[in-house]
Amino acid sequence: MFLTRLRDALTEADVVDDPQIIESYRADHAPGVPAGMPRAVVFPRSAEQVAAVLRAAVAERVPVVPRGAGSGLAGGANAVDGCVVVVMDRMDEIVRIDPLDGVAVVQPGVRNTALREAAAEHGLWYAPDPASRDFCSIGGNVATNAGGLCCVKYGVTRDSVLALQVVLADGSITRLGRRSIKGVAGYDLTGLFVGSEGTLGIITEVTVRLRPLPPPAITVVASMPGLTAAATAVQSCLTTMTPSLLELLDRRTIRAVEEWKGLGLDTSAAALLLAQTDLPGEAGEAEARRLEQTFTEHGALEVYRSETAEEAELLLGARRFAFPALERLGRVYLEDIAIPRGRLADLLAAVERIADRTGAIVGTFGHAGDGNMHPTIVAPWDAPEAGTAATAAFHAIMDAALDLGGTITGEHGVGLLKRHGLAGELDDTARRLHLQIKQTLDPYGLLNPGKALPSMP
Amino acid sequence: MFLTRLRDALTEADVVDDPQIIESYRADHAPGVPAGMPRAVVFPRSAEQVAAVLRAAVAERVPVVPRGAGSGLAGGANAVDGCVVVVMDRMDEIVRIDPLDGVAVVQPGVRNTALREAAAEHGLWYAPDPASRDFCSIGGNVATNAGGLCCVKYGVTRDSVLALQVVLADGSITRLGRRSIKGVAGYDLTGLFVGSEGTLGIITEVTVRLRPLPPPAITVVASMPGLTAAATAVQSCLTTMTPSLLELLDRRTIRAVEEWKGLGLDTSAAALLLAQTDLPGEAGEAEARRLEQTFTEHGALEVYRSETAEEAELLLGARRFAFPALERLGRVYLEDIAIPRGRLADLLAAVERIADRTGAIVGTFGHAGDGNMHPTIVAPWDAPEAGTAATAAFHAIMDAALDLGGTITGEHGVGLLKRHGLAGELDDTARRLHLQIKQTLDPYGLLNPGKALPSMP
Ligand SMILES: Cc1cc2nc3c(=O)[nH]c(=O)nc-3n(C[C@H](O)[C@H](O)[C@H](O)COP(=O)(O)OP(=O)(O)OC[C@H]3O[C@@H](n4cnc5c(N)ncnc54)[C@H](O)[C@@H]3O)c2cc1C
Ligand SMILES: Cc1cc2nc3c(=O)[nH]c(=O)nc-3n(C[C@H](O)[C@H](O)[C@H](O)COP(=O)(O)OP(=O)(O)OC[C@H]3O[C@@H](n4cnc5c(N)ncnc54)[C@H](O)[C@@H]3O)c2cc1C
Repeated sequence: MFLTRLRDALTEADVVDDPQIIESYRADHAPGVPAGMPRAVVFPRSAEQVAAVLRAAVAERVPVVPRGAGSGLAGGANAVDGCVVVVMDRMDEIVRIDPLDGVAVVQPGVRNTALREAAAEHGLWYAPDPASRDFCSIGGNVATNAGGLCCVKYGVTRDSVLALQVVLADGSITRLGRRSIKGVAGYDLTGLFVGSEGTLGIITEVTVRLRPLPPPAITVVASMPGLTAAATAVQSCLTTMTPSLLELLDRRTIRAVEEWKGLGLDTSAAALLLAQTDLPGEAGEAEARRLEQTFTEHGALEVYRSETAEEAELLLGARRFAFPALERLGRVYLEDIAIPRGRLADLLAAVERIADRTGAIVGTFGHAGDGNMHPTIVAPWDAPEAGTAATAAFHAIMDAALDLGGTITGEHGVGLLKRHGLAGELDDTARRLHLQIKQTLDPYGLLNPGKALPSMP
Repeated sequence: MFLTRLRDALTEADVVDDPQIIESYRADHAPGVPAGMPRAVVFPRSAEQVAAVLRAAVAERVPVVPRGAGSGLAGGANAVDGCVVVVMDRMDEIVRIDPLDGVAVVQPGVRNTALREAAAEHGLWYAPDPASRDFCSIGGNVATNAGGLCCVKYGVTRDSVLALQVVLADGSITRLGRRSIKGVAGYDLTGLFVGSEGTLGIITEVTVRLRPLPPPAITVVASMPGLTAAATAVQSCLTTMTPSLLELLDRRTIRAVEEWKGLGLDTSAAALLLAQTDLPGEAGEAEARRLEQTFTEHGALEVYRSETAEEAELLLGARRFAFPALERLGRVYLEDIAIPRGRLADLLAAVERIADRTGAIVGTFGHAGDGNMHPTIVAPWDAPEAGTAATAAFHAIMDAALDLGGTITGEHGVGLLKRHGLAGELDDTARRLHLQIKQTLDPYGLLNPGKALPSMP
């Protein structure tokens, strides 16, 4: 009956119940998070088709799991038993790029990189750049409020989203926000949907702002003698400059990358700092010099500055390989905590203490300039008992971030992975507020049930 | 009984029912918007006292009107009959400035300028700069999501707010957001409260991000031969640069300022463009040259660039006097529409047509770089019948902004002034959503009733 309704609303080929195909839509990229068994996977091609799916789901009380490209790291797109997975992949049209307005309108299935490339043809730039940009969707980016490498200067996805078309739980279609940069008529419901991880509605169109393409960046790399020296160098940079990128890799991460890729990194360093400036011309040169100088003042063992745009990009390789390099070493538990900018040294010290205490192997890298770090716990394949230490460390690191005034997740989202951590972050009233809003927008609790939200206080 | 409860919860001196004192807390700065008669005005000194006021209000179903400094331009802080006005003035402490975290924590009654000055002592900058900065409160800025002159590069208030303490309608106190720059745990309830105009809760503490103080700006001024030339010059700037300020004054505004202040402005020009760049050193010089060049290419009659920081600030005088200069000419109806950036020429033309058609006198100025303009309709004191033309023009300009894909209010908020305009901006489902959220958070509808929200579709 449910399937019949779906097949009536969508074309035959866009409704799938073949268990073999379904299998590949059960889980996202989060390792070790449970995934249920969907009864169907659908690939709508319009907001109206999404609305029809939701109306059918409400009529028969079928849970609905929205899914973009499935690159999520929190289990947010993981199926729950008996659900319909709504894959937004086939709504992948770039509806319009308007260079004069500095605006693009896209369907949610468009890949981040596809939007960037289309904007670049007009000399424009879509700033948000998650490391997964080649294989994640704009809809998923909006639903998770994805971050990336450029946030330290250009903000997160939320800062680029002007308007959304959304299908609500009851199948009604609405437009939120506007095409102007500014606007304060009504509540910021666009912002409410950004980062809502598929629990409030399904995003069917996204209007984003584009910026002028920045000038080619200069990359500055420094190997640092200690984590504290690295963290205080980051601090110093931020009080006087706004670099366009400011990343850190710790020793274990450097070694994992070096072992795998042989880039010639200094494996004796305690940390590698990677910074970029994209100021134009002489100002860029000057900022690069100040970055070098700041790193040197904080005891850098070696400082290097890129000479060409290609080299600038090449030097980022170490950062781009960080996570896959650690993944090679075993089963990984990827953290995504964020702390106030000034507490980076404290956080890095806390992570070291936690690793010592639990016996977990932790490699840490991430967006140092935003205080958003990815301590990555590795449980070697040949040490099955390492899982216990890893789990203990995973929780302890979240607690440490909260103790420092931070958050359990800076960009990946809560999904299934971090639901229990919410109780430590949100006070009772805030938790109640979340559940009231969810209840108001999704009275039957069908949208992505069991994800992203705290339990009742 | 209600007053007794208030006097029990607050000190005697912080509860006022003297009609003469009450009189000065009945209305904000919006001309011609109705204001009711409060039964009391209270000046709480802590979140707990605010909570006590709200509990008393709920118990006796007394409407509550939150009020900052009363500088609002939409009647948002206007009293309703029988309400208690909650003035946040006496919660005016800068709780903490943390230079390492780049964060300030303030009570809502702190003046915008006071926060700026306190931050500057640490070499830091609170970006949002409404023209009212000397006499508006941070709480009011947050509640209206205030804009200003620097938004074109640095965003609106929302972009600087990290966390809030809020007292909800039932008197419960909660903390939303966090001290880290990034964070995606839970819904963006901080963002939901920013711009909610006192209808969802009372803001009792605000955590904002601070930035490094930008280098001294260079101002470039150009007098333009036509509105379309001015608008296309603005366009050209934005496709390749991000100036830190980009404002426009039309001929009527130039003349009003010149008549009053005699600054030596070119009163034959159709428009004056004011731009700033705050890039450091040579990059700033280069950007200033490109601004000059762009204005020249679009037919500027005259272009001038400031030589010193003092002169740069002085040249902004023309812009800062714009509204008061028009106010001298009669009763004013201040618009605050915003349109997609590329539609500025269309908007300016539409405003001229509307003025012609209705016979209204309109002077237009505003944040051209954001497409957020303030067409100001002047009904001369000696022409009482001009009010009808003014009202017609006021509505027609909102419609024109909506037709161009924009909004009825870019920064001042809806308040009482623009409630009827919401029906044109929000679709039925979006209006229903607004009312559902309001109902959930404020079931008795006591917080700022009759303001900011659309009516039921
Ligand atoms: C190697 C790697 C690197 C990564 N780097 C980063 C990074 O730098 N920064 C970062 O933030 N993330 C990063 N991620 C995580 C992930 O790519 C992002 O979370 C991304 O935004 C997910 O997009 P997606 O299309 O894959 O969404 P999915 O994984 O399919 O879904 C993510 C969540 O969004 C919901 N959702 C998806 N589409 C919609 C829609 N149209 N409407 C409503 N809800 C929807 C889902 O229900 C789910 O809760 C990385 C992942 C990998 C594997
Ligand atoms: C000459 C002049 C120039 C101006 N220039 C600008 C400008 O450039 N940009 C701009 O955006 N605005 C401008 N304004 C408008 C006004 O200054 C802003 O809207 C400002 O943010 C209001 O702050 P306030 O403290 O005066 O708030 P109020 O006027 O007291 O209140 C405004 C709204 O916020 C609510 N509110 C206030 N405090 C709280 C609180 N603590 N908790 C919950 N709700 C609260 C009120 O209920 C009301 O709805 C200008 C006004 C004037 C008179």
